Amino acid sequence: MIIDCHGHYTTAPRELELFRDRQLAGLADRSRRPPSATLGISDDRIRESLETAQLKFQRERGTDVTIFSPRASGMAHHVGDAATGALWARVCNDLIHRVSTLYPGNFVGVCQLPQVPGVPPNNCIAELERCVKELGFIGCNLSPDPSGGYWTDPPLTDRSWYPLYERMVDLDVPAMVHVSSSCNPCFHATGAHYINGDTTAFMQFLSSDLFKRFPTLKFIIPHGGGAVPYHWGRYRGLAQDMKRPPLAEHLLNNVFFDTCVYHLPGIELLARVIPIDNILFASEMVGAVKGIDPETGHYFDDTKRYIDQASSLSAEDRSKIFERNARKVYGRLNAVLAQRGLARVSS
Amino acid sequence: MIIDCHGHYTTAPRELELFRDRQLAGLADRSRRPPSATLGISDDRIRESLETAQLKFQRERGTDVTIFSPRASGMAHHVGDAATGALWARVCNDLIHRVSTLYPGNFVGVCQLPQVPGVPPNNCIAELERCVKELGFIGCNLSPDPSGGYWTDPPLTDRSWYPLYERMVDLDVPAMVHVSSSCNPCFHATGAHYINGDTTAFMQFLSSDLFKRFPTLKFIIPHGGGAVPYHWGRYRGLAQDMKRPPLAEHLLNNVFFDTCVYHLPGIELLARVIPIDNILFASEMVGAVKGIDPETGHYFDDTKRYIDQASSLSAEDRSKIFERNARKVYGRLNAVLAQRGLARVSS
Repeated sequence: MIIDCHGHYTTAPRELELFRDRQLAGLADRSRRPPSATLGISDDRIRESLETAQLKFQRERGTDVTIFSPRASGMAHHVGDAATGALWARVCNDLIHRVSTLYPGNFVGVCQLPQVPGVPPNNCIAELERCVKELGFIGCNLSPDPSGGYWTDPPLTDRSWYPLYERMVDLDVPAMVHVSSSCNPCFHATGAHYINGDTTAFMQFLSSDLFKRFPTLKFIIPHGGGAVPYHWGRYRGLAQDMKRPPLAEHLLNNVFFDTCVYHLPGIELLARVIPIDNILFASEMVGAVKGIDPETGHYFDDTKRYIDQASSLSAEDRSKIFERNARKVYGRLNAVLAQRGLARVSS
Repeated sequence: MIIDCHGHYTTAPRELELFRDRQLAGLADRSRRPPSATLGISDDRIRESLETAQLKFQRERGTDVTIFSPRASGMAHHVGDAATGALWARVCNDLIHRVSTLYPGNFVGVCQLPQVPGVPPNNCIAELERCVKELGFIGCNLSPDPSGGYWTDPPLTDRSWYPLYERMVDLDVPAMVHVSSSCNPCFHATGAHYINGDTTAFMQFLSSDLFKRFPTLKFIIPHGGGAVPYHWGRYRGLAQDMKRPPLAEHLLNNVFFDTCVYHLPGIELLARVIPIDNILFASEMVGAVKGIDPETGHYFDDTKRYIDQASSLSAEDRSKIFERNARKVYGRLNAVLAQRGLARVSS
């Protein structure tokens, strides 16, 4: 089984955005608020939005299950207020639940959190619990910068995060560290803000003792870990200069990297410097880069091809990257897949 | 000849910091301002500060000339006001000039600019001209974020930069894009802010037509280009999605990467994906990472070793990376070295 741990519902029917427009218009004029949280999207419209995109690519590329969450740039925690953010997260998560109900063999849910800039993330606990306990979700996306590019909130190692982390540990769900859109003109969203968010989060973890306090807390750093594997020597050296333990001991029981790196040399570097046990297959399709690489004739984000080609990887390595590591990091994944009648890993 | 294009005077005698303390204390109490810009540092103290550090490493590692600038994290454009910033840049640059006068065979100057958050960088032109014309400097360090981690100024492609760029072009000097320290608790300086600054600048260039307007303007993106080479496929793909020309045509006549990547796999990736003509040798010693890598028994920042070892590089490639690319990108370097009686490249 090939599990893609990083997919967003970037192709959601436009009614979702119309709802958001009315919701935000309602901040200025209450009479414009949507009358209910019902989007008016039929099951067929959902099927159509997926059959022509994510499902088509799953079939073409030979992947099986996508760990699926609302569109990352749509989260926009910096827009609106706490009440609109809470409802927006709920509506987006409910739509993911409908997707995974319609296609139980193809999608497993991960939730958006109703983070609010300047507000301790305790307010996210109820939605996390609802999504995990009631909707069968197996993780959350957690933004290290709810300001949308101004980084005005505390780092991920701040104590204000602890209540949410405690709940994540209790529920046995990891978080993918994922910023949303950028409202800062310095940062292109997918070309700078996303990657910077990844690099920043890793260095926050490195500088702290967070995982002494939470030894079973788990984070996936997407987009191949930002700049981190490329600068692995720098991070090993910084940890050493800061009198931290070696990174394997200090962070690698808790921090994992996905494979959203859109060329073979990058994937080969990742597989060369990061322990195989810490690498989870992902493509982020349909996402940041939509085109076909003229150098290969294949989609840039068809990352399975790079892993198939990476010369250093054994069959055992690929089995871990494609399936077994995801089953380990997402503690509830095995049960969810079994409940849906999907086979366990063969090994 | 081996030219290290990225060194900062991180070991400057402490009188420099005492001056800065008095200067900033003077913001609160004018009576505490330093009486003059004279630091009271003897030539012997400068020699001592270098003989035990940069010069020692140059000799041990077999490198020749370092393109040398004030300590990057010391620039701190976000601290103080325009007048203190202007004097601070002048004092720091004058000290670099003394270094290059004492050791003309070892150091060539690059200047700090008196950038001020929220102020268009026209105010930097006079200091750039002074350093180039009077002190024989060959470039400048230019921060894409004078706020020190809040990114509240416009991107590097904003028109407010144009007057400075025009002067850079006239003077034939490139800029190294280099942030200073971070006052944002989210960003560790050398582990996150530096790398993010590099990635961000590249994406700003990619999103713009800056080099159509300034076809001979040149930037060096340090720290191996941040995350960019590792995500080269992403950047090629984003450019294509944005209907930009291929990156080689769009950016690579103007944007260059240094080799401050502190492990062999990273350097090998850099050399594999970035054209050799766009790679300049650098170590940033004595800088971000000070220790010895237990895996190799050598300093993390002894980047010459990685280039010597990188399996894909030919002698011709190494000659470009070590010397000839620097002579090309720093348009005034040949003349400065010739004036000092240093040999031209042999090839």
